[in-house]
Amino acid sequence: MAALFRGCRNFYKRSHKHVELTLVSCRSMASKTPVGFIGLGNMGTPMARNLLKHGYPVIATDVFPESCKEIQDSGAQILDCPAEVADKADRIITMLPSSPNVIEVYTGPNGILKKIKKGTLLIDSSTIDPAVSKEMAVAAEKMGAVFMDAPVSGGVGAASLAKLTFMVGGVEEEFNAAQELLTCMGANVVYCGQVGSGQAAKICNNMLLAIGMIGTAETMNLGIRLGLDPKLLAEILNMSSGRCWSSDKYNPVPGVMEGVPSANNYQGGFGTKLMAKDLGFAQSTATSTRTPIPLGSLAHQIYRIMCAHGYSNKDFSSVFQFLQEEGYSRSSGSDPDSA
Amino acid sequence: MAALFRGCRNFYKRSHKHVELTLVSCRSMASKTPVGFIGLGNMGTPMARNLLKHGYPVIATDVFPESCKEIQDSGAQILDCPAEVADKADRIITMLPSSPNVIEVYTGPNGILKKIKKGTLLIDSSTIDPAVSKEMAVAAEKMGAVFMDAPVSGGVGAASLAKLTFMVGGVEEEFNAAQELLTCMGANVVYCGQVGSGQAAKICNNMLLAIGMIGTAETMNLGIRLGLDPKLLAEILNMSSGRCWSSDKYNPVPGVMEGVPSANNYQGGFGTKLMAKDLGFAQSTATSTRTPIPLGSLAHQIYRIMCAHGYSNKDFSSVFQFLQEEGYSRSSGSDPDSA
Amino acid sequence: MAALFRGCRNFYKRSHKHVELTLVSCRSMASKTPVGFIGLGNMGTPMARNLLKHGYPVIATDVFPESCKEIQDSGAQILDCPAEVADKADRIITMLPSSPNVIEVYTGPNGILKKIKKGTLLIDSSTIDPAVSKEMAVAAEKMGAVFMDAPVSGGVGAASLAKLTFMVGGVEEEFNAAQELLTCMGANVVYCGQVGSGQAAKICNNMLLAIGMIGTAETMNLGIRLGLDPKLLAEILNMSSGRCWSSDKYNPVPGVMEGVPSANNYQGGFGTKLMAKDLGFAQSTATSTRTPIPLGSLAHQIYRIMCAHGYSNKDFSSVFQFLQEEGYSRSSGSDPDSA
Amino acid sequence: MAALFRGCRNFYKRSHKHVELTLVSCRSMASKTPVGFIGLGNMGTPMARNLLKHGYPVIATDVFPESCKEIQDSGAQILDCPAEVADKADRIITMLPSSPNVIEVYTGPNGILKKIKKGTLLIDSSTIDPAVSKEMAVAAEKMGAVFMDAPVSGGVGAASLAKLTFMVGGVEEEFNAAQELLTCMGANVVYCGQVGSGQAAKICNNMLLAIGMIGTAETMNLGIRLGLDPKLLAEILNMSSGRCWSSDKYNPVPGVMEGVPSANNYQGGFGTKLMAKDLGFAQSTATSTRTPIPLGSLAHQIYRIMCAHGYSNKDFSSVFQFLQEEGYSRSSGSDPDSA
Repeated sequence: MAALFRGCRNFYKRSHKHVELTLVSCRSMASKTPVGFIGLGNMGTPMARNLLKHGYPVIATDVFPESCKEIQDSGAQILDCPAEVADKADRIITMLPSSPNVIEVYTGPNGILKKIKKGTLLIDSSTIDPAVSKEMAVAAEKMGAVFMDAPVSGGVGAASLAKLTFMVGGVEEEFNAAQELLTCMGANVVYCGQVGSGQAAKICNNMLLAIGMIGTAETMNLGIRLGLDPKLLAEILNMSSGRCWSSDKYNPVPGVMEGVPSANNYQGGFGTKLMAKDLGFAQSTATSTRTPIPLGSLAHQIYRIMCAHGYSNKDFSSVFQFLQEEGYSRSSGSDPDSA
Repeated sequence: MAALFRGCRNFYKRSHKHVELTLVSCRSMASKTPVGFIGLGNMGTPMARNLLKHGYPVIATDVFPESCKEIQDSGAQILDCPAEVADKADRIITMLPSSPNVIEVYTGPNGILKKIKKGTLLIDSSTIDPAVSKEMAVAAEKMGAVFMDAPVSGGVGAASLAKLTFMVGGVEEEFNAAQELLTCMGANVVYCGQVGSGQAAKICNNMLLAIGMIGTAETMNLGIRLGLDPKLLAEILNMSSGRCWSSDKYNPVPGVMEGVPSANNYQGGFGTKLMAKDLGFAQSTATSTRTPIPLGSLAHQIYRIMCAHGYSNKDFSSVFQFLQEEGYSRSSGSDPDSA
Repeated sequence: MAALFRGCRNFYKRSHKHVELTLVSCRSMASKTPVGFIGLGNMGTPMARNLLKHGYPVIATDVFPESCKEIQDSGAQILDCPAEVADKADRIITMLPSSPNVIEVYTGPNGILKKIKKGTLLIDSSTIDPAVSKEMAVAAEKMGAVFMDAPVSGGVGAASLAKLTFMVGGVEEEFNAAQELLTCMGANVVYCGQVGSGQAAKICNNMLLAIGMIGTAETMNLGIRLGLDPKLLAEILNMSSGRCWSSDKYNPVPGVMEGVPSANNYQGGFGTKLMAKDLGFAQSTATSTRTPIPLGSLAHQIYRIMCAHGYSNKDFSSVFQFLQEEGYSRSSGSDPDSA
Repeated sequence: MAALFRGCRNFYKRSHKHVELTLVSCRSMASKTPVGFIGLGNMGTPMARNLLKHGYPVIATDVFPESCKEIQDSGAQILDCPAEVADKADRIITMLPSSPNVIEVYTGPNGILKKIKKGTLLIDSSTIDPAVSKEMAVAAEKMGAVFMDAPVSGGVGAASLAKLTFMVGGVEEEFNAAQELLTCMGANVVYCGQVGSGQAAKICNNMLLAIGMIGTAETMNLGIRLGLDPKLLAEILNMSSGRCWSSDKYNPVPGVMEGVPSANNYQGGFGTKLMAKDLGFAQSTATSTRTPIPLGSLAHQIYRIMCAHGYSNKDFSSVFQFLQEEGYSRSSGSDPDSA
């Protein structure tokens, strides 16, 4: 893992970056100057609170004033709009639900770019279309600012405990500056490459996660139908080559593990609707790069169908429930079609 | 894992099993009596050799006389046919390539059941249709013998090093007797339930393995297209929820890992044709139990198509190569259809 | 189509078939002798009635005595079991729900083969596994009888109106004899080849039907989401290369056509459960012949999942309803995930 | 079908459209004034020639000067760039290979919109992303011009014979004006709704076409494996509910039909690469409207994989060849894995 966490780098070798790097240094030297935070939802609020805990003054805003109350009570200063935040802070973190929100917050009439200062570091932790990340980076560069995408892995619990993983894309010279802030909110901060790479890494991870989860659900369901005990089957898989995160850390079958959504009627966790959204990004990027993703694409369709059948807000491991045939045991003995 | 490895059990509680248990005891008390071994292929030969190493005399046969040479040199006695082996040994292990071979070796004109002795323990380590395992168990029971299915996980290397995993199905009272022999050839011996459960467990594991492998191949390919470094992407997946055996132990992308088939032009390992065969069992059992397996089923179709395109004997991780667009980098800049 | 309907053939060229052919001739010459009919369900009863209408005495039985009432009132003689029918008729038609029923009716303790006469013509119109058809043919041949598989296309309505299509497999020399009876009950009688070919043809047709239906449902749903009028879209498809039976004769979108199940809340028609059963046969035969059927296999999984969600008894065109996102129009404007 | 072909409509009822309509009238009254044509590829050249045949002077251009030669010889005037065409013609048809080309031709530095006259009618027959069609319409409207999308169904042959089908999207008041020109080049001109509807209809048709084609290929392949004669199977499907355009007009199995690409080694016809492109549009629009398209999506993946295996320029019916197992007949008797 060491290779993932970049330490000091020799900036001076790349003299053509000189002006930009000077700006970076200014920021770094004054590291406890205020940090802007835009987007105070379930994820953003605990993230901003962790910045406060590390001694950073936080200047925040959200489109819903009521969302600001909690972080205000924790000591943050609340402003009216992103433009005002940009006027007062030269490091800004955004955590927003979707691409249109990001576009509005950055380029809208009261957006960050309206009052941004040269050299400002913009870190977007939203999970969005990588193409939008690239557009925002171009727009920021025109204003002399630096944009990095840094989507997170880990949910509300990890956000509270500062255990998030950040996957960061952007110019490598700025990674240290971003890392300084992100390490206050996460356990892992990984540099992935140029702008958009953070989104790409997250999309890839979540696509494989979805495939592994549906695969685990199918496999457990099939094993149960074949007479295997679910706990025993999980143990066998987990000591064998079928092992995956969904089988050994987040098993979707009720009764196999404790402390996971399947043990709690699929409440909490990572909603099916959010997984469908991420798979939509995987699908779009695969289509535009002409990459075949047969299983990823089918996983997308399955989560999309689940959304149409009342599973939107259940944890994505509820695909086990979705696939399980209702009333199977009762009908298995008498159905004349079971040829 | 402790629960998987059964130790002593109190046989006397179940008095109606008395006669059978007496026979079991006879076998156990004379544990270094000869063991029969039928099927001396790439797997069977090293397995039989491990029995010899543990001091068991081995009486063996194979339909191809030339296959017998190697184990004969190691000290095994070679007989003409399965019936003769059954005449001389009361514990017999079979390791055969497919269901028809198993049927022939057990119930054919020179088959085991022609000369089997009451109380003989039959352990079939072939990977076959669980329905055939059940048929063989019924046929054996009629002759007063006991049949257990014990398919293996792990390839030729694991067979040589006695590191196989055995998944065992059959009457629980006989598990100790089977375990005595199987531990000479494997590191894990897992009791899965009634006859056919070993096959069921193996089918389940391999279905999830296939899904994880194709998913990993798709994900790595997509990430590379999106500009991510393959080694970095593998590291990110393996520290995140996308992690699976195929990403962290058997990565399908050349250059990411050493000592795996992808590092050796997909030579060695577990052939695509064999994976397609196992997925066929998954498909059949899913169809007969009316279990939906959308990803498992698509994985089956993909490996089946690969067999039609020259991948039969390549390792199953070659699905990465199959999905990768040939000449992609050359055409990406000029193709007018890349809208 | 002319090629499909075989006329007279010169039996005498094949002298080694002489004895058998003599028996065939006996049957043919006495064509209004009683015909046996076993299986008096929704399909069997109107089929048997059409035989009566054409002047054939019918000797019938069913495992449920109450099912016999209707055909008895129409003039058929009711017997106790298949064996008794075989004792009194030398031409027998069976119409049963599944493979196990067929096995029981033919080879069970009171089955047809217990009292069958040499030269009897057995026509099975059930839709079953082609492998079972072949087994029954072998068993019949041992008794000197002839077995043909003749599954039907068309539902209860076509059965009543004698508009069924029969797909017939078996020795070609017997096709005329079978055709004599089948034309009383159907509009098309097609000779498909050796025993099992009728089942094979039906499986193939229904697999393509399922693919076309799901494809039509997806396409109509997508077009509606893109703002197209469903009737207009159906017209465009039907004049273009997207045209298929499901789009032009059985459109699954309510309001596009009259007189189809989609116009009647998916009541009537061909149940999802029955389609899932037929797709199971397609899957099994594809697996055993190692034929890749990616879309057919996914269609199977989709109908299987639908069965788990309350669609078992709805017409198979209800896949449109299954795929349609509930409450889509309401949420489309406000969902923050619609990036 | 009558409803699809709109005749005269009373423009005067909609007085708020008055100015625009006056312009329309001007165009219509001077109907044999020059028509611009941009994009002189395999499709564009015969389309432009059909305009010339109907007496319309044609002013044309193409990015490749050599492409202009043929239509110049037929009597068209060749100009240097789209802007010049727009300067001289108030009705312009574009036929381009992809979205980026359309964007360049309309909004590029020498694009149509640089010199467009108020009231100009722009008809784009390219198959592109409906979102791009909408953008072009907005850009045109700002300049006082009218943009309609009118993608075609039918290939080079239909283009030569003026037998294309045009699916037209745009303001209904302009449909008559578009129809006047399009009927010179096509047999069917269908009004589909607002701008982008033509693209939507084409995408829908081609998605269902792809599904039907792959389904037909799978079904024919399975039937052949089960011993059915391909011609007979095609006849049975075409008289039954499995019937679709791909089975009855464009059968993918060599030897079943004449005059189709499968009879000519899959040369000519509609290339796999082009089908993959259209399915990419289906996938993108489905993803953005959150519509589940399980079969459409899998069809997309299959054509994408085919492009990676040398099928790009073969007709899309070559999926039969892709799915067929190589050397199947030879290995079927001896393969030990055929359990």
